[in-house]
Amino acid sequence: MTILLLTSVPADEENQWLGSLRAALPEEEILLPRDMNDKATVELAVVANPPKGVLAELPNLRWIQSLWAGVDALLMDPTLPEDVPLVRLVDPTLARSMAEAVATHVLALHRNLPLYAKQQQQAKWQQHILALASDREIGVMGLGEMGALSAAQLHQLGFKVRGWSRSPKSLAGVGCFAGPESLPAFLSGLDVLVNLLPLTDETRGILSRELFDRLPKGAGLINFGRGGHQIEEDILVALDSGQLSHAVLDVFSQEPLPADHAFWRHPDITLLPHVAAPTNPRSAVEIVAGNIRCYRSTGELPKTVERLTGY
Amino acid sequence: MTILLLTSVPADEENQWLGSLRAALPEEEILLPRDMNDKATVELAVVANPPKGVLAELPNLRWIQSLWAGVDALLMDPTLPEDVPLVRLVDPTLARSMAEAVATHVLALHRNLPLYAKQQQQAKWQQHILALASDREIGVMGLGEMGALSAAQLHQLGFKVRGWSRSPKSLAGVGCFAGPESLPAFLSGLDVLVNLLPLTDETRGILSRELFDRLPKGAGLINFGRGGHQIEEDILVALDSGQLSHAVLDVFSQEPLPADHAFWRHPDITLLPHVAAPTNPRSAVEIVAGNIRCYRSTGELPKTVERLTGY
Ligand SMILES: NC(=O)c1ccc[n+]([C@@H]2O[C@H](COP(=O)([O-])OP(=O)(O)OC[C@H]3O[C@@H](n4cnc5c(N)ncnc54)[C@H](OP(=O)(O)O)[C@@H]3O)[C@@H](O)[C@H]2O)c1
Ligand SMILES: NC(=O)c1ccc[n+]([C@@H]2O[C@H](COP(=O)([O-])OP(=O)(O)OC[C@H]3O[C@@H](n4cnc5c(N)ncnc54)[C@H](OP(=O)(O)O)[C@@H]3O)[C@@H](O)[C@H]2O)c1
Repeated sequence: MTILLLTSVPADEENQWLGSLRAALPEEEILLPRDMNDKATVELAVVANPPKGVLAELPNLRWIQSLWAGVDALLMDPTLPEDVPLVRLVDPTLARSMAEAVATHVLALHRNLPLYAKQQQQAKWQQHILALASDREIGVMGLGEMGALSAAQLHQLGFKVRGWSRSPKSLAGVGCFAGPESLPAFLSGLDVLVNLLPLTDETRGILSRELFDRLPKGAGLINFGRGGHQIEEDILVALDSGQLSHAVLDVFSQEPLPADHAFWRHPDITLLPHVAAPTNPRSAVEIVAGNIRCYRSTGELPKTVERLTGY
Repeated sequence: MTILLLTSVPADEENQWLGSLRAALPEEEILLPRDMNDKATVELAVVANPPKGVLAELPNLRWIQSLWAGVDALLMDPTLPEDVPLVRLVDPTLARSMAEAVATHVLALHRNLPLYAKQQQQAKWQQHILALASDREIGVMGLGEMGALSAAQLHQLGFKVRGWSRSPKSLAGVGCFAGPESLPAFLSGLDVLVNLLPLTDETRGILSRELFDRLPKGAGLINFGRGGHQIEEDILVALDSGQLSHAVLDVFSQEPLPADHAFWRHPDITLLPHVAAPTNPRSAVEIVAGNIRCYRSTGELPKTVERLTGY
């Protein structure tokens, strides 16, 4: 029973994945679609943006392992077989990288770096009062693999931290809010809002004017979740009215972001090309290989994605 | 016996210092020079950039308390009485603020923010490989109040950290180097060099071409010490040759930095107007008041500045 590697990443990247997976799992037969003789032999698919339709043609597929942490794009594919368990990448290295990205940009906003950058352009020497980290309220939406570690890192740096999730949580040093009814209380008084939600039917478009209006005037926004979370026009309006002072955006409704998009040259936007927490091939291959080895020896799957909630 | 507050800061700031000191030390008589009747009654001077010459005219001065952490400017004043003990501000809040500034800018360099900012200006969507923090070597020059906490914070963030001081040290998670003979070994292989030395005869001009040439090509520089540490022309040469990839500068030989200085518009310089760790009046007054109360009850002074070494 073979493993199929299904991607639409550039050929050299695909070959790297293939080589690393084969090296980590020498006992397995791991193939690309072009080397597959019999679709019926494929028991397991390892996927990174798989081409549409291929998964549906594998009659004996037992489970699908994603190489990405977010599986929203995969779930949006109507050809994805409904009854095959889907496992996303849960990688502590990835969560560490995200917590580091969050720390970097929360610190940058806390320390007024966008303002000092503007002053530098004008050769203007002016000091601004520096708040203590302990006087800043930072809110993290999503308290999963990414959010929980990011919140803990912010707490370690001395910030006041709140988090918001679907089910109630208890995390050291983090004020926890759960469910849509607690969203206004969570948002009220935040200096910086960080989005680390998965993209689902419930969270699509959540970063909207309505939400921004619940933040104090001049709050900062960091979106490291998905482009589908943000209403891009509403961000521009909120920045222009001063409701938001600055936005750090790593994800967009269309990626790569078109060169003529207003975000690129907006003075109050820090624009990143989806680099907050890139999959680390080294650690990802280890984790995927571990999942597969565990399945071979025990028949058990890692925690799978819930189709109903979408994450 | 009175306490004299001697500053050349703006009048409103001076009044704030005066009010806070009086509130914290209601049992003391604290005066400004204009309210002083008899110079012989002054036992203690609390100073922030004191006007030259005044300290020398106080015949019964027992000690001087600085409101700043760095006392290089004070020590350069030839009218400073040689035999009066000098105490600088040692404030954990200040050290925390510096460690935070160091974390902010090391993270910014580590995560390639200057490069992504350039790409944003060009509407260029391009991802770069992200190194792990644990693959980065960060070097901290100076392991005193500021340097030791900064090094510990960098270690907590996952970086490999080295430190350099005059006397040998042992700090958890920090590779410690001491003395001029170990400087080349300390510098070799650093990704980012952070300067937190005090400005003394031995450290003046230390950030020079000779030092930059001992770093790997493309290293980053962060100077949060003093402008006198850096040879400004050498920084420009090193940036232009690519020996340094980026410099974050908070301090300058002349402050405010003149508007026509080449640093302002250099694409590879992040310029800050001396804001890495501003004295926090609230915590500074508490510490100074504590020092004075301790002196009143025990006759003992806090650790004083060594005139010979200059810090
Ligand atoms: N920009 C990047 O480079 C990058 C990299 C990796 C991942 N990401 C994004 O980060 C997302 C999160 O990843 P993760 O691994 O942390 O996911 P996760 O472990 O599944 O955590 C998701 C969190 O969001 C909460 N949540 C989900 N739906 C919610 C709702 N309707 N209301 C309130 N809270 C809700 C969940 O609440 P419960 O705890 O109650 O279930 C959970 O705390 C990914 O889906 C991906 O989009 C971005
Ligand atoms: N930019 C800002 O906003 C800002 C704010 C505050 C302070 N500062 C600067 O930061 C400096 C450091 O403050 P601090 O409170 O950390 O000072 P500190 O406690 O006196 O520590 C000084 C450190 O530098 C080391 N050192 C001194 N001379 C040396 C030499 N010749 N070679 C090698 N190491 C040497 C000392 O070594 P030993 O441990 O062996 O004595 C010590 O570790 C201040 O002097 C000030 O200039 C800047």
